[in-house]
Amino acid sequence: MMAPDRFAALWRSLEPIGRGAGGGYHRYSWTYPDLACREWFSEEAADRGMTVETDGNGNLWAWLGDPAAGDAVVTGSHFDSVPGGGGYDGALGIVSAFLAIDVLAEQGARPRRPLGVVAFTEEEGARFGVACLGSRLLTGALDPQRAAALTDRDGVSLGEVMKSAGADPALLGPDPARLRRIGAFVELHVEQGRALTAPVGVASAIWPHGRWRLDFTGTGNHAGTTRMAERQDPMLTFACAVLGANKEARLQGAHATVGRVSVEPNATNAIPSSVTAWLDARAPEQSTLDSLIAAVTTRVSERAARDGTGVSVSAESVSPVIEFHAQLRDRIADLLGGAPVLPTGAGHDAGVLAAHVPTAMLFVRNPTGVSHAPQEYATDTDCAVGVDALAAVLEELACR
Amino acid sequence: MMAPDRFAALWRSLEPIGRGAGGGYHRYSWTYPDLACREWFSEEAADRGMTVETDGNGNLWAWLGDPAAGDAVVTGSHFDSVPGGGGYDGALGIVSAFLAIDVLAEQGARPRRPLGVVAFTEEEGARFGVACLGSRLLTGALDPQRAAALTDRDGVSLGEVMKSAGADPALLGPDPARLRRIGAFVELHVEQGRALTAPVGVASAIWPHGRWRLDFTGTGNHAGTTRMAERQDPMLTFACAVLGANKEARLQGAHATVGRVSVEPNATNAIPSSVTAWLDARAPEQSTLDSLIAAVTTRVSERAARDGTGVSVSAESVSPVIEFHAQLRDRIADLLGGAPVLPTGAGHDAGVLAAHVPTAMLFVRNPTGVSHAPQEYATDTDCAVGVDALAAVLEELACR
Repeated sequence: MMAPDRFAALWRSLEPIGRGAGGGYHRYSWTYPDLACREWFSEEAADRGMTVETDGNGNLWAWLGDPAAGDAVVTGSHFDSVPGGGGYDGALGIVSAFLAIDVLAEQGARPRRPLGVVAFTEEEGARFGVACLGSRLLTGALDPQRAAALTDRDGVSLGEVMKSAGADPALLGPDPARLRRIGAFVELHVEQGRALTAPVGVASAIWPHGRWRLDFTGTGNHAGTTRMAERQDPMLTFACAVLGANKEARLQGAHATVGRVSVEPNATNAIPSSVTAWLDARAPEQSTLDSLIAAVTTRVSERAARDGTGVSVSAESVSPVIEFHAQLRDRIADLLGGAPVLPTGAGHDAGVLAAHVPTAMLFVRNPTGVSHAPQEYATDTDCAVGVDALAAVLEELACR
Repeated sequence: MMAPDRFAALWRSLEPIGRGAGGGYHRYSWTYPDLACREWFSEEAADRGMTVETDGNGNLWAWLGDPAAGDAVVTGSHFDSVPGGGGYDGALGIVSAFLAIDVLAEQGARPRRPLGVVAFTEEEGARFGVACLGSRLLTGALDPQRAAALTDRDGVSLGEVMKSAGADPALLGPDPARLRRIGAFVELHVEQGRALTAPVGVASAIWPHGRWRLDFTGTGNHAGTTRMAERQDPMLTFACAVLGANKEARLQGAHATVGRVSVEPNATNAIPSSVTAWLDARAPEQSTLDSLIAAVTTRVSERAARDGTGVSVSAESVSPVIEFHAQLRDRIADLLGGAPVLPTGAGHDAGVLAAHVPTAMLFVRNPTGVSHAPQEYATDTDCAVGVDALAAVLEELACR
């Protein structure tokens, strides 16, 4: 049994890296906090006698045994955060992986399959805009030339960033040989809502989800002198989209969020000429997601006709439902004494790998239900239970 | 009579300065386009035998006759623009001033009072955030130390900007001696809506108006995993404010605009933790403006209670109604053969001077009704009529 204090000791060694004054994390790929996390990873791996390698996509791997033998069991997650995000999202899966390997060693369990810990790069897409960048590149789900050309908010491309860090962007891209060596992937992750009431649960599926860009156009004009009846104000149509998406999501049992907005010219005394917003939408079923987007589009188009504005809705990324490996899921749930099985609305590297490798996810309870914000949390006690659960799964998969 | 072609010739000499590729202007105080406009001003003044001086607040003055004699008649406006604004707002009043002086000279009219042309600095407040900065400083309506500390979007203070331009920020502040020399001020300005159907009109008043800051606070959280019922999403309360302000303004016969928004963390996959927005509101009567703000505050507070969010409404700047000098207004309207008299929702340097000096405004018709945007426009023919009207007013005030 992992003692909560022992979990806490390793957790505290990683915790300060990239944490801002307000408690939120700013760990973006290829920045100093990311490099510090990777150094931490390499030291922890070395302490456990593991060999470390970085693949061409910037993903970090630590191995017990020779991965070339194939049929490896891999666990891990990611270090990077959203802007001002929580500390547990991603990092908990990596800390738990090293501690689970300690549990196995102390139990005298001897892996019969290669055992790996992975830290995928840029899972959040916070720097270059594409979520699960490292795992998508690995599996061939993202064109490497498109990836190299992605730019951050300062206009610097991933290719340039890699070069200045001494990495070669020509090595970006699918790595089928590496992928073939993986026999099973298990990602432990903090739960990101209040759906889990036990300390640990098992994922059934990732909801279908996506990002839609909403472009509203109107007529820029003087805020003081333009008669109300003569305005074409795109801010009104945008506001209707915000409230309409919320109402439809509630009605249809889906999730809809407008969290990002850009206004031109964004001046107090000027009616905007345009507003751009992004709609994040997710639902348990694809049909519900489709119906939600259709309903929002209808509401917004009707309002635009009244406002005299233009609106276009375009999908930026859409992910279909991901069902995790059913046998693996049931085997793990049984092994953990009937742990709850639940879906999630959040995307994960495990969702990307699931199309190629038998994949499962473990969730650790989140008492605040908050994620992507500083209040994101799991108790040391629950985290220790998570480590034991992960160790049991690795023992079941790799040591029998 | 001013020929439209003659107006056009002088107009075209100023027109290219600070115009962007999309046709919108970016003339901000103390930037290169502003300095180029000021050089243009000095050359036009010199061509007319006028002496030029810059006051301690950065306002430019050109004089026919000795202003120290007092009881001067001054006309003019400003060069600076809002971001991507129109070319006529401000500049039309300065071009027309020089052409009106030409008309007087050609008519053989001899000023008996000193005659001045002024270009006030930073009327729009686009760089340092305070509208009518130059005229407010001149009249003592703004504390000079507060002004020197105002910063632009790059964090550079007005004081620093002045120093690097070779000006002395210690000279900022009220200039009562200069103000006392002015016996009358007349500003010609493009009309900023569709209220004027004749080529030229006379201002009655500036509506009471102001800027209110709306701060919405909620709980930042994960867009995918947070249940709809468990959210405290400030974007919803903000959207209600946008639609509520619009509805109340229509109901009450006022103007309300939300043109500027700032979202934290402004990420697609995160429920915002806070949204800040600015409400620009104006009304013909102070009581209507008060009632509008009260109604918006009530609507937003009720919605915030339902959304579980926090909201605060704070006035950033509020200007009471400004009635222009009644005698001067009627005298000018009569002189122009019964020109229409109309109020405006827009603030002007004339509104600041009106508290100290008999002040009037002439408006030139705007066929698009658009202002603060590239479509802002007046025909050369109407502008020439405007020049003649201004010349007649200056002749009446200064030469009789």
